[in-house]
Amino acid sequence: MNYRLVLNILGKVMLLEAALMIPSLIVSIIYGDGDSLAFLITILIVSLLGIAVTFIKPPKTKMFARDGFMIVTLAWIILAVFGGLPFYISGAIPSFIDCIFETMSGFTTTGSSILADVEALPRGLLFWRSFTHWFGGMGVLVFFLTLIPSMGGRTQHLLRAESPGPSPGKLVPKIKETSMILYGIYFVLTVVCTICLLFAGMPLFDSVVHALGTAGTGGFSIKNSSISYYNSPLIDIIISVFMVIFGVNFTVYFYILKRNLMEVKKNSEVKLFLLVIGLSTLLITVNITRIYGSVWEAFYQAFFQVTSLISTTGYATADYNLWPSFSKMILIGLMFVGSCAGSTSGGLKQIRLFVMLKSVKRTIKKMVHPRSVIPIRADGKLIDEEQVSGIAIFCGAYFLIMIVATVLISLDNHDFETNFSAVLTAISNVGPGFGKVGPTGNFGFYSDFSKLILSLCMLVGRLEIFPVLMMFQLNAWKKA
Amino acid sequence: MNYRLVLNILGKVMLLEAALMIPSLIVSIIYGDGDSLAFLITILIVSLLGIAVTFIKPPKTKMFARDGFMIVTLAWIILAVFGGLPFYISGAIPSFIDCIFETMSGFTTTGSSILADVEALPRGLLFWRSFTHWFGGMGVLVFFLTLIPSMGGRTQHLLRAESPGPSPGKLVPKIKETSMILYGIYFVLTVVCTICLLFAGMPLFDSVVHALGTAGTGGFSIKNSSISYYNSPLIDIIISVFMVIFGVNFTVYFYILKRNLMEVKKNSEVKLFLLVIGLSTLLITVNITRIYGSVWEAFYQAFFQVTSLISTTGYATADYNLWPSFSKMILIGLMFVGSCAGSTSGGLKQIRLFVMLKSVKRTIKKMVHPRSVIPIRADGKLIDEEQVSGIAIFCGAYFLIMIVATVLISLDNHDFETNFSAVLTAISNVGPGFGKVGPTGNFGFYSDFSKLILSLCMLVGRLEIFPVLMMFQLNAWKKA
Repeated sequence: MNYRLVLNILGKVMLLEAALMIPSLIVSIIYGDGDSLAFLITILIVSLLGIAVTFIKPPKTKMFARDGFMIVTLAWIILAVFGGLPFYISGAIPSFIDCIFETMSGFTTTGSSILADVEALPRGLLFWRSFTHWFGGMGVLVFFLTLIPSMGGRTQHLLRAESPGPSPGKLVPKIKETSMILYGIYFVLTVVCTICLLFAGMPLFDSVVHALGTAGTGGFSIKNSSISYYNSPLIDIIISVFMVIFGVNFTVYFYILKRNLMEVKKNSEVKLFLLVIGLSTLLITVNITRIYGSVWEAFYQAFFQVTSLISTTGYATADYNLWPSFSKMILIGLMFVGSCAGSTSGGLKQIRLFVMLKSVKRTIKKMVHPRSVIPIRADGKLIDEEQVSGIAIFCGAYFLIMIVATVLISLDNHDFETNFSAVLTAISNVGPGFGKVGPTGNFGFYSDFSKLILSLCMLVGRLEIFPVLMMFQLNAWKKA
Repeated sequence: MNYRLVLNILGKVMLLEAALMIPSLIVSIIYGDGDSLAFLITILIVSLLGIAVTFIKPPKTKMFARDGFMIVTLAWIILAVFGGLPFYISGAIPSFIDCIFETMSGFTTTGSSILADVEALPRGLLFWRSFTHWFGGMGVLVFFLTLIPSMGGRTQHLLRAESPGPSPGKLVPKIKETSMILYGIYFVLTVVCTICLLFAGMPLFDSVVHALGTAGTGGFSIKNSSISYYNSPLIDIIISVFMVIFGVNFTVYFYILKRNLMEVKKNSEVKLFLLVIGLSTLLITVNITRIYGSVWEAFYQAFFQVTSLISTTGYATADYNLWPSFSKMILIGLMFVGSCAGSTSGGLKQIRLFVMLKSVKRTIKKMVHPRSVIPIRADGKLIDEEQVSGIAIFCGAYFLIMIVATVLISLDNHDFETNFSAVLTAISNVGPGFGKVGPTGNFGFYSDFSKLILSLCMLVGRLEIFPVLMMFQLNAWKKA
């Protein structure tokens, strides 16, 4: 590892984080809820530390793959640790482990909270929580790339580690431009979402923070009862639609902008995504109609919860913990899969489900015709064998990590449904789970050890496993 | 598909099944519990039908891969359906779906039961249940191959579909001889197990049926409280040791017989298997010592339950449902993995865990050194890329099927722990699960639909997914 280069960039990331806190500082000053000082102190600490570290100049600036992955993982840990300071300094969250959990949950766009009463938080902190969703969603280092002068091919690993999906593509040859286009689309869509929520009658502050959480597919709300607080089917449906929009691969919007509708039409992943949403909504609507008494209410409750969990946002308008097992189990299935690669959502991603389904089908076909050669295609493009096995290994690693993490947090002796869904919701970056961590519960009751394990799961899910596992590979730390 | 060939062999399988019932008929006559007539009628029906079907002579006797896989899947369904007749005709199990569930559970060596009071069953039927374990464990068609005249290479697909593991090998060039060697080792080990149990003070009938259940890693007991009925640590430990023995790849015993100890020593799968058993037993012993008050009792209870679940047998000496979550979750992990390929056990198999762990490690190494080529080896032999991706796809398909099956049986509206563990225990061919299907519970409360789904899961697990999925591929049914 090129230590000096890694430290230098980490120092810059700290400076970026300090800058990212300025909007929250402004919000805290505007509302005067008493959390301005916490932001000021944090910004001071983080920027001074950042400046100190950036004084380390790398003699060689060539970035290898491992440096890139290491930077991303370490940067995210730093973001979570320092990003938790405002909660700690203001006294809003007394335990520092809880602060890390909350911030990691924010940046990874998970949205799990240890807070029992979120409404008691000053508005600066509420804004900061949702703001971490927004930046974490598209990627902090992706944003970083839009700021620094183009470093040629060397920075591709930063983009690769932070972009969800098996093979993140560049939209245009230059990485810096790709990052700017992605953030541009992201920003515009977020503004449109905010405006829609305003028109639907949500107050300004609420509209902004909920739009940030929707865009990042995060799910932190500023109300204890989440979106159900507003009791408005219109708001529910607006947020549902936007959760779907932010679950779609952003390259689709790029192609729409370029009026290349052919590329959009042949996107197999988006088709599968919409099919899964439609089918799940239908099945759950039928299953819960007798609870709600009206098909219409059952439909939009089902639609909201389906889009919320498949996009791995985690807003809630109903306590689905009380729904029949069939509906609950469908929702658990959706939490595994998540939305499209190249979106802000978590989970295994639809494209991996797509390739896995095709691989299973191919295995059977090969049994019928042993000598046949059956290529796997997505969007008309061939997926080579190495990619297929890479995707399958990814899915296997996902389940292995889930089992190990569930064993570890089981030391707290809570029930299986709670533990299993806590790990699933963490690694898939959803937010709420089932049982005690359902939409009306929170994660405060877990031990510090379990909270750290769950925070690690969030990071593992957000950075797609391997960059984080690399930290445990001693070889990767060797000086280069 | 070569329909005539398939039907002809299925007819012979029915004749074999009729023959397999003769020992149970004899037992029922010896004990005179009133179930002899049920066996006689069944034997008559099955053999007459079998004779009728074998009259269909195939014009071409060439067996293609798909014919082989189809024969195995259909044969197992026939075995379960007709094997359930004695329970039905005798009136011991009034619902025919329940009879199918019980027999499928027997042949697949699952050991899940719908019976609340197994002690009420006549001894002929008790013997039949355990006898299905024994034959199902090593494979009914593998046995079939020892009887019929050698058919050259054409029958390899029968062996392949029934032998658990990613790449079942022939021990000797001739399939018939391989089958005979396997059954020879199996028979001798079962006799040794019976004798050990007799010496430990178990009655003769009990020793025989429990040895059959241990050898097949099945788990049907003839006591409502399973092995804990005998209240003997010696019996517990004998069964534990034999569950480990039957969880080991049988080629190991073949090499021991041939005094080729080098091959035994370098077997990576067996090493991993013993390591997992040792580690799990240690962790659970520490975790449950405060419950049992003595380290010794905690140890042998842990050892028994670990070996029972990892070998996917499913005997119980303790209600592990009442153990702390940490121990329970380790046991759930073991149920996923199971024992070695080429043993009588179920689950994903240790070799697949081994390859998956190595693949994950390789993925990380490749991130550190992108241009490195890192082959995966097991037992010193190279595992090629196609095998690696095949194993990864197998694991993915395993989880996908689990999720779909859990969604389906959730229609009965039982809790998540019960449903999830019911499907896991079925597909891994273990027997008991957690929650309502724990070691003191049974599967009787599920609806007929769920019982059929769970029976299908058992078959999917026993035949390792793809031969069963092939049934749903219309192409495979095309006349050839």
